[in-house]
Amino acid sequence: MSSNKHTHLHVKYHAALDLNHISTEPAPHDMAQASEWAHALKKQGEHLDALQGLLHAGKNKAVLLVLQGMDTSGKDGVIRSVFTHVSPLGVRAEAFGAPSEEEKRHDFLWRIHQKVPALGEIAIFNRSHYEDVLVTRVRGWIDKETWTQRFQHIRNFEAMLHDAGVTVLKCYLHISKSEQKKRLQARMDDPSKQWKLQASDFEDRKLWADYMAAYQDAMSATSTPLAPWYVIPADHKPYRDLVLAELLVQTLEGMALATPEPQFDLSTVKLR
Amino acid sequence: MSSNKHTHLHVKYHAALDLNHISTEPAPHDMAQASEWAHALKKQGEHLDALQGLLHAGKNKAVLLVLQGMDTSGKDGVIRSVFTHVSPLGVRAEAFGAPSEEEKRHDFLWRIHQKVPALGEIAIFNRSHYEDVLVTRVRGWIDKETWTQRFQHIRNFEAMLHDAGVTVLKCYLHISKSEQKKRLQARMDDPSKQWKLQASDFEDRKLWADYMAAYQDAMSATSTPLAPWYVIPADHKPYRDLVLAELLVQTLEGMALATPEPQFDLSTVKLR
Repeated sequence: MSSNKHTHLHVKYHAALDLNHISTEPAPHDMAQASEWAHALKKQGEHLDALQGLLHAGKNKAVLLVLQGMDTSGKDGVIRSVFTHVSPLGVRAEAFGAPSEEEKRHDFLWRIHQKVPALGEIAIFNRSHYEDVLVTRVRGWIDKETWTQRFQHIRNFEAMLHDAGVTVLKCYLHISKSEQKKRLQARMDDPSKQWKLQASDFEDRKLWADYMAAYQDAMSATSTPLAPWYVIPADHKPYRDLVLAELLVQTLEGMALATPEPQFDLSTVKLR
Repeated sequence: MSSNKHTHLHVKYHAALDLNHISTEPAPHDMAQASEWAHALKKQGEHLDALQGLLHAGKNKAVLLVLQGMDTSGKDGVIRSVFTHVSPLGVRAEAFGAPSEEEKRHDFLWRIHQKVPALGEIAIFNRSHYEDVLVTRVRGWIDKETWTQRFQHIRNFEAMLHDAGVTVLKCYLHISKSEQKKRLQARMDDPSKQWKLQASDFEDRKLWADYMAAYQDAMSATSTPLAPWYVIPADHKPYRDLVLAELLVQTLEGMALATPEPQFDLSTVKLR
């Protein structure tokens, strides 16, 4: 697949976004290649592993991958599928659940900032600071003034990370409401997966339209050139994994990573 | 002393600032009251203690006091003098020295953000994120583009703290070069204080004019209405302590702190 092939999935900064009109399925052309997805993912995984090695060696740049999506959209699954191809050395996954009492006594970026990648690292955020303009909004805990203010604070925060050498990539895993129904039903029917279900999953499902509105606003307001959002069709798991891997490889390739120079003149070394 | 008496010490946002033309001594009128400084500080300390109690009880606001100044300007001393009047419950002092290897692998606000006050707290920063536009600039480790960028990141960061309920007060302890000479000499002559001296103190002294230029630019660029800078005349220690205490009391009084409501109807309680 050619580079920049996923530009149609890119969210335009400050442009209206309508998730109802973006497919949760692969385009027909991609669907026709479904038999090759698994092999293509393996190849992307090898690229990713090599690029992560360079990032780790150079220690002057970093990557922050933000994953958001409705329940069952596959945030855990995509992390497992894509990063099993990569050495855990220098890759760190962080999950952000409901904030603790101590976290609630600080600004919404406090717990997030602590977990950003160090130079040389890839950090993956399974949920993120965006929860504070999504669930908080949909549940009516904050007003429009607050979430608008937070959009600005998020843009500023991500620009600051960029200036410190952190490349930010944000992916929304886009599933349909009917696909979620199937996945929730499958969890309800499988005793080994019932533990994954929370009461809030069902409440959130009832608020689907509100969540879509909140996601649209948040992504449109924060998909800056320095920290773009991509909407990943996520009804097909192997396709979802492949697209995410390709976007990540593309992002790392754009960072012009190079093998560091030797730290001293190797011609002076005599191995005995 | 009336409220807002120190407005002449306030640094105007984006206006030229010339520290050479700001006295490091009290104004003659204040100097005439020197015999009352110690008593006045004690009274301010009592106010501060009461206000800090309200802040701690309410737990919906916080205060960040940033202290900067050349070596020997009295950052440690002022913390001791002012905060001995206040319960350590809910007051936390943080010192920022040269960054660790791990801190260097993150943006300059990373270690700072971790230490900001929780709601209900007063945090005192002995040096701060401002070191990253001062010593780094004077020593030639960053260029103008970088420190200008950082001014913006600092304004954004402090505005974000403000929106989260944190009132930011920044004080520059202003000593003259000749007063520093006396204080350094006193440390050199006193075996019990020689440990406080570092080689960098003497190097920084040689770069005095460069530091003044860096301080001027940094304070002018970041003394926003939400996070003002004050230049505190610091050649006289008791006066320096009193002015800082007054500014802090004034700041807390401006926050409209109130005793929280009882958590339940006390008329229903029967003590037996």
